[in-house]
Amino acid sequence: MDQNLTLQLLALKEEFEDYKEYTSKNIDSFFLCTMALIIFLMQCGFAFLEAGAVRSKNTTNIIFKNVLDSLFALVCYWTCGWGLAYGPGEGFLEHLFGQSEFFLVGTNDYTKFFFQYVFAATAATIVAGAVAERCEIVAYIVYCCSISAVVYPILTHWGWHESGWMAQGFWISDQEKTEYLDFAGSGVVHLCGGTISFIAAYIMGPRIGRFPDDSGEVSGEIKGHSVPFASLGGFILMFGFLAFNGGSTGSITAPGIGKIVSRAMVNTMLSGTMAAFTCLIVHYKMKGKLTLLFTINACLAGMVSAFAVHAGGGSWGLFAACLVSHKGICYAVSNAITGHGWQWLPVAQLFWQIVCAFAIITWSFATMVPVFLLLKKYGKLRVPAEIEIKGLDIYKHGEAAYPLHAYGHGWDEFEPIRTTKKISVLNPEISLEQLASAYDAMSHKKSVYHNPSGFEHPELHGVAKYKKQVPKPTQSGKENGAFNA
Amino acid sequence: MDQNLTLQLLALKEEFEDYKEYTSKNIDSFFLCTMALIIFLMQCGFAFLEAGAVRSKNTTNIIFKNVLDSLFALVCYWTCGWGLAYGPGEGFLEHLFGQSEFFLVGTNDYTKFFFQYVFAATAATIVAGAVAERCEIVAYIVYCCSISAVVYPILTHWGWHESGWMAQGFWISDQEKTEYLDFAGSGVVHLCGGTISFIAAYIMGPRIGRFPDDSGEVSGEIKGHSVPFASLGGFILMFGFLAFNGGSTGSITAPGIGKIVSRAMVNTMLSGTMAAFTCLIVHYKMKGKLTLLFTINACLAGMVSAFAVHAGGGSWGLFAACLVSHKGICYAVSNAITGHGWQWLPVAQLFWQIVCAFAIITWSFATMVPVFLLLKKYGKLRVPAEIEIKGLDIYKHGEAAYPLHAYGHGWDEFEPIRTTKKISVLNPEISLEQLASAYDAMSHKKSVYHNPSGFEHPELHGVAKYKKQVPKPTQSGKENGAFNA
Amino acid sequence: MDQNLTLQLLALKEEFEDYKEYTSKNIDSFFLCTMALIIFLMQCGFAFLEAGAVRSKNTTNIIFKNVLDSLFALVCYWTCGWGLAYGPGEGFLEHLFGQSEFFLVGTNDYTKFFFQYVFAATAATIVAGAVAERCEIVAYIVYCCSISAVVYPILTHWGWHESGWMAQGFWISDQEKTEYLDFAGSGVVHLCGGTISFIAAYIMGPRIGRFPDDSGEVSGEIKGHSVPFASLGGFILMFGFLAFNGGSTGSITAPGIGKIVSRAMVNTMLSGTMAAFTCLIVHYKMKGKLTLLFTINACLAGMVSAFAVHAGGGSWGLFAACLVSHKGICYAVSNAITGHGWQWLPVAQLFWQIVCAFAIITWSFATMVPVFLLLKKYGKLRVPAEIEIKGLDIYKHGEAAYPLHAYGHGWDEFEPIRTTKKISVLNPEISLEQLASAYDAMSHKKSVYHNPSGFEHPELHGVAKYKKQVPKPTQSGKENGAFNA
Repeated sequence: MDQNLTLQLLALKEEFEDYKEYTSKNIDSFFLCTMALIIFLMQCGFAFLEAGAVRSKNTTNIIFKNVLDSLFALVCYWTCGWGLAYGPGEGFLEHLFGQSEFFLVGTNDYTKFFFQYVFAATAATIVAGAVAERCEIVAYIVYCCSISAVVYPILTHWGWHESGWMAQGFWISDQEKTEYLDFAGSGVVHLCGGTISFIAAYIMGPRIGRFPDDSGEVSGEIKGHSVPFASLGGFILMFGFLAFNGGSTGSITAPGIGKIVSRAMVNTMLSGTMAAFTCLIVHYKMKGKLTLLFTINACLAGMVSAFAVHAGGGSWGLFAACLVSHKGICYAVSNAITGHGWQWLPVAQLFWQIVCAFAIITWSFATMVPVFLLLKKYGKLRVPAEIEIKGLDIYKHGEAAYPLHAYGHGWDEFEPIRTTKKISVLNPEISLEQLASAYDAMSHKKSVYHNPSGFEHPELHGVAKYKKQVPKPTQSGKENGAFNA
Repeated sequence: MDQNLTLQLLALKEEFEDYKEYTSKNIDSFFLCTMALIIFLMQCGFAFLEAGAVRSKNTTNIIFKNVLDSLFALVCYWTCGWGLAYGPGEGFLEHLFGQSEFFLVGTNDYTKFFFQYVFAATAATIVAGAVAERCEIVAYIVYCCSISAVVYPILTHWGWHESGWMAQGFWISDQEKTEYLDFAGSGVVHLCGGTISFIAAYIMGPRIGRFPDDSGEVSGEIKGHSVPFASLGGFILMFGFLAFNGGSTGSITAPGIGKIVSRAMVNTMLSGTMAAFTCLIVHYKMKGKLTLLFTINACLAGMVSAFAVHAGGGSWGLFAACLVSHKGICYAVSNAITGHGWQWLPVAQLFWQIVCAFAIITWSFATMVPVFLLLKKYGKLRVPAEIEIKGLDIYKHGEAAYPLHAYGHGWDEFEPIRTTKKISVLNPEISLEQLASAYDAMSHKKSVYHNPSGFEHPELHGVAKYKKQVPKPTQSGKENGAFNA
Repeated sequence: MDQNLTLQLLALKEEFEDYKEYTSKNIDSFFLCTMALIIFLMQCGFAFLEAGAVRSKNTTNIIFKNVLDSLFALVCYWTCGWGLAYGPGEGFLEHLFGQSEFFLVGTNDYTKFFFQYVFAATAATIVAGAVAERCEIVAYIVYCCSISAVVYPILTHWGWHESGWMAQGFWISDQEKTEYLDFAGSGVVHLCGGTISFIAAYIMGPRIGRFPDDSGEVSGEIKGHSVPFASLGGFILMFGFLAFNGGSTGSITAPGIGKIVSRAMVNTMLSGTMAAFTCLIVHYKMKGKLTLLFTINACLAGMVSAFAVHAGGGSWGLFAACLVSHKGICYAVSNAITGHGWQWLPVAQLFWQIVCAFAIITWSFATMVPVFLLLKKYGKLRVPAEIEIKGLDIYKHGEAAYPLHAYGHGWDEFEPIRTTKKISVLNPEISLEQLASAYDAMSHKKSVYHNPSGFEHPELHGVAKYKKQVPKPTQSGKENGAFNA
């Protein structure tokens, strides 16, 4: 009887262990896939934040780059990146990069792959904003692949893989050991992305018209074409960063981890809010305007990853961890003051964070500067000035973002409309067609507006040559009739 | 041996209890965080529903308000609101408001905080639509903070905290007790938000041009500038309301609760659908048109929270619960008729719902009317008429939603394009640049279109003064050439 | 003592079983509801993919159809579809369709209903893109209801219900049995939707201007009015398809299923990527342009459900399963070659897939061709040519997507703006108002731009009659002044 009971108990125990194991795997998969889905949507967020911030003539181009991004990052991370980051290795090199599981051969952990892939895609996509409106597509593909296949995966191996040298840290006594703190990818995602953005923008140079030239004209800020699109992107990115930071635990099944996830989300919102308010107030004091776009960008930066300030946001995240966290410098100092004795660990920790940040920046420079310089040397980095001035959409893609002849409608000749006073004939709206034909009449040319057939056909544009300068329509007047004359 | 077995059994039992406890906490955190993320995206939904419904000159402004909303609500709910709503208290006052955990000091339940915060942000954001295109930003900040710091949290304490007076209800017999039924925030979120919207809109007055004036002109409905944006907002809000209502259970781990969550989603969709069809058919019968925007708004109202009809949607939700639910009046009546005896509970329940709805409305009036009246007294409620007419975007934010000079491209001088018939020179598109220079030639002025440098610089606009009336371009003709003449 | 222990053990066992059961139900509900929410958002994705691809004059119309879609599909699936698909039945007919649980009477599984409903809505919405810009709303409602009430539910009964004839397959030996493989709805959702799209587009005919007419003019591709909107839709659909395919397991609680879900997502991304690259390269080789929209559509097709190629994408999914899966033909062949003996199962399997695909296509034709032909006979299939040319938005809905008078702002008379050189008076922007009044002056008519009151009032439009042809503004010149003359 006893025997029987013991067996039953053992069986139950085993069943329970079994249940715990497969259930926690399932729930973690569910958690990571859900968060990864939302993080994946950040590609859409970046696309629209950037699309709203460029001029309409480059809108298709910037969205194209963001779409390609997700796709190239997948191929590169699948073929090469995952293996370098998490493939088991051996020997000394194991501290530097992974050495197997390329093409996912031998991998079981698809969940982690999917989750890490969306992080890699984020790291690659960050740069697109810094080179918008002037980067050659070839350059874009090259740097995007470099990042997602090599640069970023090796950084994650250093920082996030248990055998990476940054993750291993060093022993300061028998019991105490520093470790690399990198919650939510402050370092390997945002500092890396930010550094590469800086390199790219520096080597490429600013957009034409961005800074004053010799003519003494005040240079304008180049306004984006759509505040709503930029805001849409901003909202989606907030949504995404909450998942990004919440999901960084990588698991939802360890005891007490639910609280950590939700606290991460609350802290993300709080620091985004503080950054947004700071920016808003400073800008208002200086310029007298309440700027929406700066506020959104500041908020995203505060959420540890602003578009414009990735490097800044990223490095602050790295150091904040060892300044204000529970094991941080601030606590050490306050402990020392209150007589609890001085601790060396927080100092060693801060030192280690500095070393790691330095390593991340150095690595990003060492790998990406040659890439961009080579691209520049072969003239593949930046589009010719004429194309930049006229816009990339039509020349590169054959797709205007808002083809003019797709607008307008024909309901401009209604029957008389009754008002309360009398009946009168009204043109309810100026149609673009009418404007177009009026323009045609003026200019004695036939605009293609009325002949969409010939317009924007990629095969016809292939033969188009662009002129050196943007033609300025004559403004002399007199000769040719009233309009274009 | 027995001893040993007993110990093992006890250990297993304990482990199991332990597992159950931390797992259910984790899964609930996961559930609430996921739902909260989706509900957070509703801020984006509201922003776009409203952005599409205003004119382009106020688009940046309305999005700005919706972004600020999420941020101010967080700060206010963090500093004050959460404590008033869920901070433990004592004595009689405990029935009225919470008394601790301000700044989240001493709180453990970050998950609940995050979830409740997104609800508070929703309650605050509802009002923005009612005061669009004319509300001063100061007024907006003041009322938004009032709602999320005080008005809404105290309501949730009444209705959702176990010691709140509404939640406690009263005993009608030894066994039977009324309780406040408020599934998915019909009362405390939507009735409150709707009431405050009404107060705000009433005190502020309608937009200029919204209703007929003395001149006898038919007043127009003021159309929004983008149906697609409004629809985008509507779709996101549907997505959000499904999560809002599904997530209202606050947990996913109690036995059988999964079914309740999914049934809530199904019912949400069904009632949204019924409301949308009703509105569609009535409008079609009356006006002969199938209106998209009314249909979307009706659908959202049916999902218990339409933008335009928050008060209506919210109060119906409150009463529907005690009319048609399983313990509701309808069942009581049918039971009485079929001879199962009359029950007083449903009647008492209905009475209690009416009392609570009355309390919510009274509380909203008592707190918010003084706020709005004070704002009005000090001239901080509504922007001056000139700014309202000319639009808030440029004056307040220095950011036009669609800066004209960010549009257009330069590809208007292609080489001849081949058609099947002949080769002819075509202007593939009327560029805005050409239109602009044509306009310049006409008007003998230089539009800044060609000189973006000076345009929309916030620091330059600071000195701009607006005129009293919108200048009407002269239409007399003759003198000045053909165009502007 | 023993007795006691045994009882305790039994109690624990029972509690554990109980816990397992209700927890797995809850977690599955959570999983399915979350995925269903994201899949529901695909309605928004389709709406915007299609809205971006039509001309602005039909934008409200296409969004309206997509909203209606979700609503009609719910009503139809609730009243009828669910019962036909999953209602228990008896006798031979059970293999053909379900026979109970109409109006959800007697159903307990709301989670499955909600999940299946979003699939049904997807099947119905696929067709909208194929008939855009010309379909009568009545026709749309009729076919949408037919699909979600009858055609699609019966297919799911065949393929996904355990007693459906396709799901049952046939025995090829005592141990081996074919089964219908339909991961993520390749067949019942995408092949069905694609077939009906083909039928609808064929019977309805192409849009006016889509293909060359007798006049010998090159016919244009009809460009959509907004690349960003189409891309937004594409991004949302990618997000949705990941959930669609990941969620197709229908559960997250069986041992090892988490891995299957994440692998499904990884594979979805990979095949989308491959399709996108193939399309991109082919198109670039042929036309010399890197097209964004084709790339997005190809990516979605690769994710087993492109808009334009539903039928193609769907049927490839059906066959791929038995070609390259672990039990597929390729493995059988390689086994035979390597001397492991020939297996008949993969061949039988492929045969069965072909039979099923044939059945799906036949069923779609048999049910939907009569529907569309009847609609055509009674003139309810396609709008009159005049309305098609002038656009559906204003005539059908009274809502222009971008009402012109909602644009523009009044800040065109700033005080002088300082430049570095001198102070000059500038018109910062050409306002639409000024363009409008210039146009008015030219044409000697008063455009309603200045009198929004009379514009787009649905009740006034009811009396409007459209003319036979789009009026061409005269271009002869001379007589009437310079502009309209």
